[in-house]
Amino acid sequence: MNNNNNKPLILISNDDGYQAKGINSLIDAMRELGDVVVFAPQHHQSGMSSAISTLQPLRTKIYRHEEGLIAYHCNGTPVDCVKLALNEFLDRKPDLLVSGINHGSNAGISVIYSGTIGAAIEGCIFEIPSIGVSLCDHSQDADFSHTCEVAKTVATKVLKEGLPQGVCLNVNVPKGKVKGIKIATQTQGKWTNEYKKSYDGIGQDVYWITGNFENWEENNNDSDEWALANGYAAIVPVKIDLTAYNFIDELKEWEL
Amino acid sequence: MNNNNNKPLILISNDDGYQAKGINSLIDAMRELGDVVVFAPQHHQSGMSSAISTLQPLRTKIYRHEEGLIAYHCNGTPVDCVKLALNEFLDRKPDLLVSGINHGSNAGISVIYSGTIGAAIEGCIFEIPSIGVSLCDHSQDADFSHTCEVAKTVATKVLKEGLPQGVCLNVNVPKGKVKGIKIATQTQGKWTNEYKKSYDGIGQDVYWITGNFENWEENNNDSDEWALANGYAAIVPVKIDLTAYNFIDELKEWEL
Repeated sequence: MNNNNNKPLILISNDDGYQAKGINSLIDAMRELGDVVVFAPQHHQSGMSSAISTLQPLRTKIYRHEEGLIAYHCNGTPVDCVKLALNEFLDRKPDLLVSGINHGSNAGISVIYSGTIGAAIEGCIFEIPSIGVSLCDHSQDADFSHTCEVAKTVATKVLKEGLPQGVCLNVNVPKGKVKGIKIATQTQGKWTNEYKKSYDGIGQDVYWITGNFENWEENNNDSDEWALANGYAAIVPVKIDLTAYNFIDELKEWEL
Repeated sequence: MNNNNNKPLILISNDDGYQAKGINSLIDAMRELGDVVVFAPQHHQSGMSSAISTLQPLRTKIYRHEEGLIAYHCNGTPVDCVKLALNEFLDRKPDLLVSGINHGSNAGISVIYSGTIGAAIEGCIFEIPSIGVSLCDHSQDADFSHTCEVAKTVATKVLKEGLPQGVCLNVNVPKGKVKGIKIATQTQGKWTNEYKKSYDGIGQDVYWITGNFENWEENNNDSDEWALANGYAAIVPVKIDLTAYNFIDELKEWEL
């Protein structure tokens, strides 16, 4: 794709796969802001976090090519898609990476497991301003119209302002009308009752993942879960430096 | 396993799979400190980060059962192993989780992609003091003796002192003799030249992951890569709250 036209170049990925309604809604929205390159998983990659394929080679194929848009699918994870696009397929660094729109929330501790956020974190490692966008609705046919408006607002601002090195944005949008956008923190909590025991065709035990999110700070109105529960979209700035700096001094006193 | 004997209960996982030399060395070392439950991937899961299996059910099997040791393998990721053990198989919360010993470094930005650290982060989410241990040697037959000594030293201290909520430890050990243990920060940098292009049996393009770590702070003697390059084991405390708190105020001024 020839992107010598001064338009922003926007890289899009997701974890639900290239056929999901969420990514296709996002493509339409981002084409209003710039030229778009899609590098999306061929298959469903929900819950893939920042996983990379170490044992299988990657393959890729163009499935759409129009004025201002080129779209590839790839047999890998969301992070594989971003890495492969940036290492091998793009002539220049994108101005923005947007991952999503995920079918389902990536608020709270889910940020850790999310392939959508994995792709955004990877863009951030490559020093590209990066955003992951999720709608709190798992249905295949969810209505992404409000979420696209939020995505365009945030993307426009990020294209203008940039983001600090090592920080990307985790944007979650509630189902239905959106009252506004709140800047928030990652809600502390964990998933519980995570498995449903079942049996396969010959009677052997199998375990399917399920679960409920246990919110440890329901009354914290700075948290992303609070914002979502109260009708607001939530933006959490996410760091890629995981160092717990405030524990370094104490750890040094251990004298290991 | 009956663990009513006042011995610490230690949960072990890894990402190289239950047959790897690294985990088997770690099991021997941790049995000196307490009763051990192993829940390890059946297959190689390197680079799986905090991935969870959302589309496939999990299966598990006991492959070793002795006094003070019970060992399961599971067809899932490292995080699946930890989640399944804690949700469905353990009668009580372990006193410690140790993941590894990984065949290869998980220092610097590799912490993001590491299944070894994914398992430790999961233990941390469950409020178990958790440690990921890696040796900077990829070979299947690496010598884990020095690393086991480091693992025992750190595990003994963590059993005594505990760890703050939301913090686990990423321990990397250099190949060969270890000069000592340094408390360190996650080295800033990224992987480059990440793919080797090749061709499959019918001549189609495939891409294999490879790459070089580009260290952005080679002279920072607080960083984990510096410690390792200078013969020290490096311990980085790792946070599970990814919120970039120091960007919140600026983000609020964006008035989205």
